Amino acid sequence: MNKLFAEFFGTFWLVFGGCGSAVFAAAFPELGIGFAGVALAFGLTVLTMAYAVGHISGGHFNPAVSIGLWAGGKFEAKNLIGYVVSQLIGAVTAAGALYLIVSNKADFETIGGFAANGYGDLSPGGYSVTAALVTEFLLTMFFLLIILGSTNYRVPKGFAPIAIGLGLTLIHLISIPITNTSVNPARSTSQALFAGPEFTGQLWLFWVAPIAGAIVAGIIHRALFEKE
Amino acid sequence: MNKLFAEFFGTFWLVFGGCGSAVFAAAFPELGIGFAGVALAFGLTVLTMAYAVGHISGGHFNPAVSIGLWAGGKFEAKNLIGYVVSQLIGAVTAAGALYLIVSNKADFETIGGFAANGYGDLSPGGYSVTAALVTEFLLTMFFLLIILGSTNYRVPKGFAPIAIGLGLTLIHLISIPITNTSVNPARSTSQALFAGPEFTGQLWLFWVAPIAGAIVAGIIHRALFEKE
Amino acid sequence: MNKLFAEFFGTFWLVFGGCGSAVFAAAFPELGIGFAGVALAFGLTVLTMAYAVGHISGGHFNPAVSIGLWAGGKFEAKNLIGYVVSQLIGAVTAAGALYLIVSNKADFETIGGFAANGYGDLSPGGYSVTAALVTEFLLTMFFLLIILGSTNYRVPKGFAPIAIGLGLTLIHLISIPITNTSVNPARSTSQALFAGPEFTGQLWLFWVAPIAGAIVAGIIHRALFEKE
Amino acid sequence: MNKLFAEFFGTFWLVFGGCGSAVFAAAFPELGIGFAGVALAFGLTVLTMAYAVGHISGGHFNPAVSIGLWAGGKFEAKNLIGYVVSQLIGAVTAAGALYLIVSNKADFETIGGFAANGYGDLSPGGYSVTAALVTEFLLTMFFLLIILGSTNYRVPKGFAPIAIGLGLTLIHLISIPITNTSVNPARSTSQALFAGPEFTGQLWLFWVAPIAGAIVAGIIHRALFEKE
Repeated sequence: MNKLFAEFFGTFWLVFGGCGSAVFAAAFPELGIGFAGVALAFGLTVLTMAYAVGHISGGHFNPAVSIGLWAGGKFEAKNLIGYVVSQLIGAVTAAGALYLIVSNKADFETIGGFAANGYGDLSPGGYSVTAALVTEFLLTMFFLLIILGSTNYRVPKGFAPIAIGLGLTLIHLISIPITNTSVNPARSTSQALFAGPEFTGQLWLFWVAPIAGAIVAGIIHRALFEKE
Repeated sequence: MNKLFAEFFGTFWLVFGGCGSAVFAAAFPELGIGFAGVALAFGLTVLTMAYAVGHISGGHFNPAVSIGLWAGGKFEAKNLIGYVVSQLIGAVTAAGALYLIVSNKADFETIGGFAANGYGDLSPGGYSVTAALVTEFLLTMFFLLIILGSTNYRVPKGFAPIAIGLGLTLIHLISIPITNTSVNPARSTSQALFAGPEFTGQLWLFWVAPIAGAIVAGIIHRALFEKE
Repeated sequence: MNKLFAEFFGTFWLVFGGCGSAVFAAAFPELGIGFAGVALAFGLTVLTMAYAVGHISGGHFNPAVSIGLWAGGKFEAKNLIGYVVSQLIGAVTAAGALYLIVSNKADFETIGGFAANGYGDLSPGGYSVTAALVTEFLLTMFFLLIILGSTNYRVPKGFAPIAIGLGLTLIHLISIPITNTSVNPARSTSQALFAGPEFTGQLWLFWVAPIAGAIVAGIIHRALFEKE
Repeated sequence: MNKLFAEFFGTFWLVFGGCGSAVFAAAFPELGIGFAGVALAFGLTVLTMAYAVGHISGGHFNPAVSIGLWAGGKFEAKNLIGYVVSQLIGAVTAAGALYLIVSNKADFETIGGFAANGYGDLSPGGYSVTAALVTEFLLTMFFLLIILGSTNYRVPKGFAPIAIGLGLTLIHLISIPITNTSVNPARSTSQALFAGPEFTGQLWLFWVAPIAGAIVAGIIHRALFEKE
């Protein structure tokens, strides 16, 4: 049960910190943190909570990670549902907290796209559905390769949260212009629910592509990098 | 006694480095470091002094941290007053040093808001008192969850200053537009004293919200993440 | 054989992440990550994959690194060809994936220079061939000094990927304006193939200078820093 | 003798990387790395070479550090001259390499102030000699407190280069606008020699203030933080 609370708090933090930095600070006039600041924020949410509660739940904070670890033989199928539900509740609760804060801004009118993910017309840089599928698939695949590899018993203990957190920063440095960067279906769902039907209509991609990438990574890891 | 000196120097460094980078470098024409640079600076003050004197005093540098650690059962009540007084003296001394430097600038006229915290009209992005309360509460709560979690005996030794320092960076990446980011009553007090009565009139929030968040984190940590 | 897959995936990630962040995100209007973001991305590709597969292949991801480690007595000559071929295949495959994504952008017309390296007219800041030779030589030499030094048995285990990855970030912070930063012949080759004959005509420099710098570093390390 | 080579290469790298990033990349149109990128570069020069050759020479790369470690009882007086001379040669050689590269830029006319340190009219933000003295004194004092503290036997092995390197990044985030940030007499000397007599006339401050700060830190560390 404590594992589920850990996943709740961790995913809350990922969405509150990552999407929050995007909503509040990315485009602040003159001094805003830009995409690079948002990339750093997303990575640091995972780095910090992986150190804080990783020893309790494993620190997934992301349905694609839980599924990829299952595919890689590191997580039991029977725990999947509980983890994914906790992650979704944490993500949506965080989105609600962000909405509460941003709606208390002096000149607030509408949240616009919030920090939702999208392709085609909803891609920040106008990238097509094909570009979005390839990008989300590849980036989640590498995210899981980093997670599965850096938590291997041959890597000195304690460094994995640095590799994984900064790996998520890297993923955002690459792909915010393409899809606003998901690699995490819970994060995408939480924002789309507030951003409206245009975004929920594209939500399928941010479940399908990350999960497919995560499963392929699990298979690659077992086939190539596990035994030797 | 050495613990109190450690807290004095650590909190001096937090205010001198964090608020100093904001005052001197954030808005420098063309090349300024922006909110992202200030966020990095605040985090690195804690990361560096936690390695330097953390083994002496625990490296709190923040009354809310001391109180949160007490609520989490990791710090004795009898030491609270000494720590908080040392932190306040360190913070105010640093603010004085910043004032000395900035008043020696060629075109200096007034320090304006210094790097003080505020809400409503004094919020950088125009966020209301409600937004400020929610934000400071939640961010300090997570800050303490990170501190309590990453210093747990199950986490490999030596990584906590990275998690905690970069956690403070993350907190600033999210919330400088909202309150100029406090999560630290000593930091807020030191700046308000120089910034003037408008800011001291709002100082209550930057004591109440961070301390409330820290206490809740202590309770959550004991209830959910301590035993298992 | 698994080592070659590790080098393939690692070099794919280096080019996909490093060059990808440059192509997609560096110059995004208002919010782009700039040279500093690209520098961080390149470094994090190496940091992450060194933790993920470094224990399998050593984590070179760069022909100059493999050759420099051979010159420093840390890598067997008989493995050189396999490593370099895997690195080249990984780099070119990644460039193909980048091309696939960027050509699926709404306003795509031409990839221009992609993220290719160049000097003279093709240098971002207009630096001559001499400047490019000196810069690539020196930076690769120091890159190998960092690699050879930080993997020494006297350095505590586990920190080398941080030193090496952030070393590559530093190298990019210095030299993107000069050559767009190579220090890696596989990275340069992969981009030049797509960027066209102007860039392939300058490719010799990005093989010669990095490899020469790497060999000199191997010699310096053995002469000065190995025994004591 | 190998120690002196280690100090030579380390100080070369500090000046080549730190000042080089300032000269080449800070103000590049649109995509430049700004003061924050330069701050990161300076810190990473020390982080990387401390891992690479720190186990050989201790990794000072700075006369003020050598003197501060002597004041703190961690370095023998008889080695001071050799270290400082090696550091100066490394710094000046690096400045020569930077000059060679920048003079091979298409539109090169003059190096202007290079990356030299200054106060008054030569301060980037127009800060007076008093501001410069206070700033350089305090920042070097804290730099040494970080170095002396993080290399203490009670801190887990291997983390000191992270604390020290990122401490130097922090110092630059604060003070580039004030003095262009020295805290290192070798770095200042190397740039002033190329930048001309205006800058050499101010060089005394960048020897006096950092060394005074370093000595005071050595005394504070011995008095307060060594025994307990």
